Amino acid sequence: MDLYSGLINKLIEELSGLPGIGIKSAQRLAFFIINMPKERVDRLASTMMEARNNVRYCKECFTLTEQEVCPICANEGRDHKTIMVVENTRDLAAYEKTGRYTGIYHVLHGAISPMLGIGPNDIKLKELMQRLQADVNEVIIATNSSLEGETTAMYISKLIKPTGVKVTRIASGVPVGGDLEYIDEVTLLRALEGRTEL
Amino acid sequence: MDLYSGLINKLIEELSGLPGIGIKSAQRLAFFIINMPKERVDRLASTMMEARNNVRYCKECFTLTEQEVCPICANEGRDHKTIMVVENTRDLAAYEKTGRYTGIYHVLHGAISPMLGIGPNDIKLKELMQRLQADVNEVIIATNSSLEGETTAMYISKLIKPTGVKVTRIASGVPVGGDLEYIDEVTLLRALEGRTEL
Repeated sequence: MDLYSGLINKLIEELSGLPGIGIKSAQRLAFFIINMPKERVDRLASTMMEARNNVRYCKECFTLTEQEVCPICANEGRDHKTIMVVENTRDLAAYEKTGRYTGIYHVLHGAISPMLGIGPNDIKLKELMQRLQADVNEVIIATNSSLEGETTAMYISKLIKPTGVKVTRIASGVPVGGDLEYIDEVTLLRALEGRTEL
Repeated sequence: MDLYSGLINKLIEELSGLPGIGIKSAQRLAFFIINMPKERVDRLASTMMEARNNVRYCKECFTLTEQEVCPICANEGRDHKTIMVVENTRDLAAYEKTGRYTGIYHVLHGAISPMLGIGPNDIKLKELMQRLQADVNEVIIATNSSLEGETTAMYISKLIKPTGVKVTRIASGVPVGGDLEYIDEVTLLRALEGRTEL
């Protein structure tokens, strides 16, 4: 690809290294960026570097934040005795969006995946166990319903149970608004097993 | 959206301003960038700024280049009496990829579109007419086969004809490998009109 000038090629190459951006999207983005106002390009570039350099893990829950302790952990009004375990900061944000969860979180930054070679020591699991030294009533495991998420949930529950802390798992079942006919069998069976009395 | 820290939000906002990147892709990209090695983020950011600041129009054909005159215009081996008119640098690259066109180009940077309020003065048309002062044999109009591309082609041909320079339009018809049954009627009629003797 030396159809474009060196700098354009270099930009296309850098952009196509980002997730979900193929060569055609990268070309489109590169030409868009070259035609953007200079200030906007500078702002985009500096925001990238600033975010990369200043965002770090909350020292309590390990979510991504600019502070030493994230606003959720720092909030005295929240129930610090209930910890919801999630795979990443986006999952935390998904639960925060509901506006109804009042406990705090623990971000694992991944899930156990023998396939990808990610073991218990590669995620923030030791850190979770350390947090249980404090006074904790309940750990709610909200990892994904994927194979990796389930494996992680199982592993964590086995680890925590001997400590006597209550461990729960978010329910698995038919999503609200979901049409039974389009839902896979495993989900349907889970929904059946998890049925509740009306 | 104050679910994330200020810097993460700012990065998501900047990224979602790029074409083809919605809020979900922007979130995904932002978290990817925050987790990228520092050197890679710096390289991406500086390539963006460098490309934006150093890429400019070739003073002859107006393609995007880092030099004053692009390598194609500077190439003495090419036929400088044949000018192919294209909408943008990516279209130029598409024809260069064929490796068989030996003339030079003229990049309009757009097409006439009354819908979008883009008139003849908003594209590099005056500049094309100026180039015709020199010794030119043929102008090949290779704008897209879209409404805007066709309008632009028509407009340019009307403008050039009085000068006596030969104006041609690239053929419109069934793409090679195309299956007639899946091709729209307008294309089929164009292919019929443009039939050549065997």
